[in-house]
Amino acid sequence: MRDFSGDHRWLSVNTATVRRQGNLAAIIDACARHGIRAVSPWRDQVAAIGLERAVRALRDAGLELSGYCRGGMFPADAERRAEVRDDNRRAVDEAAALGAPCLVLVVGGLPQFSRPGCRPDKDLGAARARVEDGIAELLEYARGARMPLAIEPLHPMYAADRACVNTLRHALDLCDRLDPDGGGALGVAVDAYHVWWDDDLDAQIARAGRRRLLAFHVCDWLVPTTDLLNDRGMMGDGVIDLPRLRARVEAAGFAGFAEVEIFSERWWALPMDEVLATCIGRHRTAV
Amino acid sequence: MRDFSGDHRWLSVNTATVRRQGNLAAIIDACARHGIRAVSPWRDQVAAIGLERAVRALRDAGLELSGYCRGGMFPADAERRAEVRDDNRRAVDEAAALGAPCLVLVVGGLPQFSRPGCRPDKDLGAARARVEDGIAELLEYARGARMPLAIEPLHPMYAADRACVNTLRHALDLCDRLDPDGGGALGVAVDAYHVWWDDDLDAQIARAGRRRLLAFHVCDWLVPTTDLLNDRGMMGDGVIDLPRLRARVEAAGFAGFAEVEIFSERWWALPMDEVLATCIGRHRTAV
Repeated sequence: MRDFSGDHRWLSVNTATVRRQGNLAAIIDACARHGIRAVSPWRDQVAAIGLERAVRALRDAGLELSGYCRGGMFPADAERRAEVRDDNRRAVDEAAALGAPCLVLVVGGLPQFSRPGCRPDKDLGAARARVEDGIAELLEYARGARMPLAIEPLHPMYAADRACVNTLRHALDLCDRLDPDGGGALGVAVDAYHVWWDDDLDAQIARAGRRRLLAFHVCDWLVPTTDLLNDRGMMGDGVIDLPRLRARVEAAGFAGFAEVEIFSERWWALPMDEVLATCIGRHRTAV
Repeated sequence: MRDFSGDHRWLSVNTATVRRQGNLAAIIDACARHGIRAVSPWRDQVAAIGLERAVRALRDAGLELSGYCRGGMFPADAERRAEVRDDNRRAVDEAAALGAPCLVLVVGGLPQFSRPGCRPDKDLGAARARVEDGIAELLEYARGARMPLAIEPLHPMYAADRACVNTLRHALDLCDRLDPDGGGALGVAVDAYHVWWDDDLDAQIARAGRRRLLAFHVCDWLVPTTDLLNDRGMMGDGVIDLPRLRARVEAAGFAGFAEVEIFSERWWALPMDEVLATCIGRHRTAV
């Protein structure tokens, strides 16, 4: 396991972590100032300053990407599937333009939440079938663009509205069915917040191996958690044994960035420099 | 699948559903008035009116039990394990005195939440080992009292503080290890709220079968859910396909009560008769 205590060369900051404190250009500047080598931006943040400006800002700052957030939200009424397909293809193109190592997929839940306006439905099995079809279709396009797709299983509390793939096992089952060769075109993003509770986790991380482990996200689970969306914790403030999890991921072959992704009203209310400095400190001591 | 549309003979009310509107005696009276045949009381509600009075009130009202809530909370510091053991044995004795068909086990999470005052710990694997040891020990006592134990897997969002058994598969793995004969002494409580999201659910319900399916709880998952504990929905108000789930449980051999258990600030604020009447209506149309 890599020693993180002496520096933060393997720290990446998911730009949602400080999305309220400034636009993507400001976040990139701040990360560069703090000696952070990588970020993972969100599509809306890129769109807000324009793709070309984002590409330039990253290059000028010498920042790498640890991923691009996000494609997915596949379940939709039949008449909107072309829109979903095109939207996801644009995400692949943007990821390629930005030089991302992978496009993270949040696959979507029931269609009425995945793509608002779709007909209400309770059929989670059908949503899962749509997700599989959608990834299969996108994978072909992504292969052409040489952009790996990283399926991110989300915590089961988001099964209805954000992602109906809720375990690493399910994500890897999809990988094995859609990309049996495992050449790196399809893999997973392992986010501690979403998977830490799973008693099957160690086995699935080992199963994933180096070729499937495309991204590793960290934050912490707070007790109590007061909001399902925006009360994620800074590493070390919660109950997740992050060093143990990182050891497992690295033992399976992962050697990339530990990406900090925190959705939190508390941290969004603090100055960007304070949040980034805290991320750096906790990356050394709690990850 | 049984037809619930014409009557509510298979409705049971978990007494936590109306715990703020009255004490257990008042709840029993109200259920009898509404022609509800069964309840599942909580230990604190029984303690508040006294065990003997609870036994008498149930008998006088002619009410059955569909379960007794709850034993468990096994993880604890070593020096408190005798206390945990004795507490759980008392729960078995109370369940027997009340004529419950099973004692529901909420197994506990990390020791500092399971039994407040214990040393903080992030080792979920150790907590799971303690749970297995605790159930094994209690099972011996419960066999002597002829009281079946029903392990209730809780939603993964409660892994740290309430139950580190979070899937039906995990609960059944425990059953198979601790009670390989499957004679009915150890089984599971399937609560729609906790397990509906699981893509492995159908297979695990079939695996459980009649001998392991000791209880079936219903409520609904709301989108958005505004509180992790007390924002559960009335059946039909959320996204869970309850009839589909009940069909699976009954196909596996379950033929007992559908127990309504709703923790909700919204429903606790309404008159008991209104809540019970709504439970009856939804039991006919949405379960």
